[in-house]
Amino acid sequence: MASKHGFKKSPSGLLLAGSDFQLKQVDTASAPGFSGKKRDAEQVLSDRAGRLAVLQEQLFAESKFGGERAVLLVLQAMDTAGKGGIVSHVVGSVDPQGVQLHAFKAPTEEEKQHDFLWRIEKEVPRHGMLGVFDRSHYEDVLIHRVHGWADETELERRYQAINDFESSLVEAGTKIVKVMLHISPETQKERLSARLGDPIKHWKYSPGDLTERAFWPQYMEAYELAFQKTSTEKAPWHVIPADKKWYARLAVQELLVDAFESLDLGWPKGDFDLAEERKRLAAS
Amino acid sequence: MASKHGFKKSPSGLLLAGSDFQLKQVDTASAPGFSGKKRDAEQVLSDRAGRLAVLQEQLFAESKFGGERAVLLVLQAMDTAGKGGIVSHVVGSVDPQGVQLHAFKAPTEEEKQHDFLWRIEKEVPRHGMLGVFDRSHYEDVLIHRVHGWADETELERRYQAINDFESSLVEAGTKIVKVMLHISPETQKERLSARLGDPIKHWKYSPGDLTERAFWPQYMEAYELAFQKTSTEKAPWHVIPADKKWYARLAVQELLVDAFESLDLGWPKGDFDLAEERKRLAAS
Repeated sequence: MASKHGFKKSPSGLLLAGSDFQLKQVDTASAPGFSGKKRDAEQVLSDRAGRLAVLQEQLFAESKFGGERAVLLVLQAMDTAGKGGIVSHVVGSVDPQGVQLHAFKAPTEEEKQHDFLWRIEKEVPRHGMLGVFDRSHYEDVLIHRVHGWADETELERRYQAINDFESSLVEAGTKIVKVMLHISPETQKERLSARLGDPIKHWKYSPGDLTERAFWPQYMEAYELAFQKTSTEKAPWHVIPADKKWYARLAVQELLVDAFESLDLGWPKGDFDLAEERKRLAAS
Repeated sequence: MASKHGFKKSPSGLLLAGSDFQLKQVDTASAPGFSGKKRDAEQVLSDRAGRLAVLQEQLFAESKFGGERAVLLVLQAMDTAGKGGIVSHVVGSVDPQGVQLHAFKAPTEEEKQHDFLWRIEKEVPRHGMLGVFDRSHYEDVLIHRVHGWADETELERRYQAINDFESSLVEAGTKIVKVMLHISPETQKERLSARLGDPIKHWKYSPGDLTERAFWPQYMEAYELAFQKTSTEKAPWHVIPADKKWYARLAVQELLVDAFESLDLGWPKGDFDLAEERKRLAAS
């Protein structure tokens, strides 16, 4: 059945990355479930932005009356895969009042004095918010595995700690949407080349990007291990083909709409006597 | 001279509220400096959104190379004056990565154990960010004055503390844009009535809104005193006629564009050897 929002099937199911998921099975240039072209996608993205904004406002409204639910989008990807574009083009359509975004960089000296989840726990979304992690606690099992900054025993402890942490978060009312944007190494090369070719974009380029690029196969292996260990029923992973930026944005938008819709939201009733307030207002 | 962005004169000058400013001189339904109609305003708002977004990105980029500057928008207003609309329609056009918004509610028990600026200082924008205070430290000289929660000596101390605090912030590189959205009491009555008439908006209504509404003249006096004491050269106040929501949004957008433009921003150069990086990339 063709849907008015462009997806023939919900991307939540199509893009699910379970514990046996292999990245090499993914065509990074594909657009699973979406029948249209780039131009259609831009129209759908714009149309669905309103739906996402309303859902988020309903969640926010609920929290004003004691609601304790939240949504958390976790974004992971290789450089240039498009995390920034997801933030500006998908999250950007939501009222800033309802968004709590944190970009996790290399840990500070203070953060290093604590367990890896310490800085993460401080940034989990408040009730009613759409939280966004631009990179996350997964760096501690990705770059740390790739460069051997943690040994196998420690990595195993971290997977378990992540599952426990996410499970508590879900139990407490937070819907978690974990996304890996997946591009091919050829696409990354093109995008880095485009950055170098445009002085306006030079500030986004760091020689360190090429250093990490050299570890591509190790990163893919680390991602697959992360899916294997942490793609749980409560907090599953989704892998989004991201060579086509327009597809990745549309898919993440739809995953978020799905997540919000699963909360069965509505508009809360006010906790006041309507007739009485009308009388007070008229007299004011 | 007619400007392509709709203002005949910069609203920064037109809407300045100096120390002798009187709110009764303002026609809350006027649109100072803007010659167009509502429809024109919507077009201009949309056109200028792109300019604001680019300027913010340049500020963000600068901070990646040691830049220590920021912009802080302070929003104050009576209920229903449109703070929320400014946040969603003006701030919402900026990349969420570059926005640091905080809505100040009634202080928590912990916050009450500290000086009134304690919770404010924690939320000042980081380098490169557009900070937004939805309500602010000014509540401590507005609602506190209106209800006599602080005596005259304490209020005087607070005005001085605010000036010292804002002066330090400006010295450290933060451009402060202080805005009061000014509506008439009749407009507030209409908007509250509209809220009561629409079940979707009931969650936004609180009986406390009417309680504060009864103190309208006292609030206007408290605002005028705040302008008198805290509209400084470094951090002046602007009063925006806000009965026309479209005008208020346009004016605040233009104040922000002006603030960013005064920083004389550009795109930072990358700190790498371009030829060398091209070579490394080609070989990767």
